[in-house]
Amino acid sequence: MDPDAVAKAFVEHYYSTFDANRAGLGNLYQDGSMLTFEGQKIMGSPNIVAKLTGLPFQQCQHHITTVDCQPSGPAGGMLVFVSGSLQLSGEQHALKFSQMFHLMPTPQGSFYVLNDIFRLNYA
Amino acid sequence: MDPDAVAKAFVEHYYSTFDANRAGLGNLYQDGSMLTFEGQKIMGSPNIVAKLTGLPFQQCQHHITTVDCQPSGPAGGMLVFVSGSLQLSGEQHALKFSQMFHLMPTPQGSFYVLNDIFRLNYA
Repeated sequence: MDPDAVAKAFVEHYYSTFDANRAGLGNLYQDGSMLTFEGQKIMGSPNIVAKLTGLPFQQCQHHITTVDCQPSGPAGGMLVFVSGSLQLSGEQHALKFSQMFHLMPTPQGSFYVLNDIFRLNYA
Repeated sequence: MDPDAVAKAFVEHYYSTFDANRAGLGNLYQDGSMLTFEGQKIMGSPNIVAKLTGLPFQQCQHHITTVDCQPSGPAGGMLVFVSGSLQLSGEQHALKFSQMFHLMPTPQGSFYVLNDIFRLNYA
């Protein structure tokens, strides 16, 4: 299993779900998951989904520029670092962002998001 | 111990060392440390220091815009996510960057960098 390929597949799945059905992201978080969104700390899948579905835009499209990954403990964990841009419907300019995930393996052979930190990169 | 204060202190120490004495960063990495620098993967403190000291500029100054942190395992570990800009001497415009660290506690009560991912955010 190539970690870079796994990271890329996760990233594509994450942002396509975000753009098509934000509520569906709940499956990727668990009770102990943490999101820091523009400095705001949110804990647990239900609160994280509430935050993401409550963002003040209806439609958006993420474009990914870079995906980096490294293994990091506990065993089977993986850090994923993303840069890209976010196009909101009705807005002329895309917003640049950076985001990191610490992914943990599930017993089913998949991953969930233990840590998620998101920041817009203002020009 | 406030994790945000620890993260901020680490970040200030890291970039002031980078800007004043890049070779001194070696103390912050260990043999198992990983750096991904603009997509290039480098492992171990000596190789990481060689990469950082070999960057094609002599003087630089980091300016930090945001610092976010979250605890993440193994026990005592901490994720630190930084955005900022990098001014190289002789260059008119600063370069925006994002960087993440996974810090691990040392027996001496300090931290070392297990994971480090750096990306410039091109406009």
